[in-house]
Amino acid sequence: MGFIAISLGESMDEQFIHAHAQSMLQKKASVHAAIARSSDERGIVLLVTGPGKGKSTSAFGMLYRALGHGMRTGLVQFITGTHTSGEITFLHQLGWMGQGAPAPVDYHAMATGCTWNSTDWSRDKQAADLAWQQALRMLGDDQLSLVVLDELSFMLKYRYLKVEQVVAAIAARPAGMSVVITGRDAPQELYALADTVSEIADVKHAFRQGVKAQPGVDY
Amino acid sequence: MGFIAISLGESMDEQFIHAHAQSMLQKKASVHAAIARSSDERGIVLLVTGPGKGKSTSAFGMLYRALGHGMRTGLVQFITGTHTSGEITFLHQLGWMGQGAPAPVDYHAMATGCTWNSTDWSRDKQAADLAWQQALRMLGDDQLSLVVLDELSFMLKYRYLKVEQVVAAIAARPAGMSVVITGRDAPQELYALADTVSEIADVKHAFRQGVKAQPGVDY
Repeated sequence: MGFIAISLGESMDEQFIHAHAQSMLQKKASVHAAIARSSDERGIVLLVTGPGKGKSTSAFGMLYRALGHGMRTGLVQFITGTHTSGEITFLHQLGWMGQGAPAPVDYHAMATGCTWNSTDWSRDKQAADLAWQQALRMLGDDQLSLVVLDELSFMLKYRYLKVEQVVAAIAARPAGMSVVITGRDAPQELYALADTVSEIADVKHAFRQGVKAQPGVDY
Repeated sequence: MGFIAISLGESMDEQFIHAHAQSMLQKKASVHAAIARSSDERGIVLLVTGPGKGKSTSAFGMLYRALGHGMRTGLVQFITGTHTSGEITFLHQLGWMGQGAPAPVDYHAMATGCTWNSTDWSRDKQAADLAWQQALRMLGDDQLSLVVLDELSFMLKYRYLKVEQVVAAIAARPAGMSVVITGRDAPQELYALADTVSEIADVKHAFRQGVKAQPGVDY
């Protein structure tokens, strides 16, 4: 068929363009059918895990997305780095961060900061419990459309929080609230709980090629 | 050893806490050594690909991160959905979107929108060429610290742009500029060009469980 077409003077590009149109029509039909099948409107749980770069930035992208729709959001950072992140500075500069209403971002950062700078398990456990209390408050607030629990998986890995309490609290949230959980090495219980799971593989990282962590990219 | 410790009255929790402190000390040493090895400061290329959810939100998270540091940024959206995304609305509401200086976000959205709604390859090719001209302008502007080329990989897949021209333009950018490329099915040439590659696997997706695309989560 391809050979006959060419012998009649049709160029490869024209073949590609024709095949492209056919493929797009099929794709359109399949996408529309999938959309028709997907009619539920409810808050979902999203888990963004794996070793690759992009977990927290993805969660923050969703937070800004929700803010753009005029929604109120919640954010608990269970680990904060040694640098203040630009996306946090941005919200502070807008005056949008606060504890509870009416702040567009209900915000709590765990006190001890970067866990790999800490060897004091008991002090970190206390800070984690305080952060979890704030998370619980947000998970019970039906005025929040999206709650981000950033780096939550580390709290489970280091046994600061129990996975059963975390799963139960998220499952009992208001029906319209979506929750984003980030952090590597998420336990199976979070996979089971989540409606959407994205695993980010670390195929390549600039850090391993001698590039230091930089503002605007890494924090 | 574990048994002896228990027989001396040390609880499992105390063992865990001791092991945790040792593990954290080792981790701290290894992180600090890696930081000492990584001293280059230069703009990098980040590729966020794979079928999973979170590619564009991750790129937008980095854009907001850069804005929080007071950096100017560029954004070309090669595919836009049928809904206006919250993160775009947010920037419009701030009045931060524009073409060229002094807008904090130098912005261009490709004209045809959602490619799976289009079967007209030639019209899309024209729109892609126009969008690429804007991308080229941004990639030549040394006042921009971060340029996001959102869904660029589709332009290559559908042959609207040639990978050689894309790679050459990105490689020739100012030394301090970082570039984020998103989109599934990225070609090997982009893997080779990138300093950091994150591949997002689609382990689970709410859409396949009957949940429709929702504001604040999907757009």
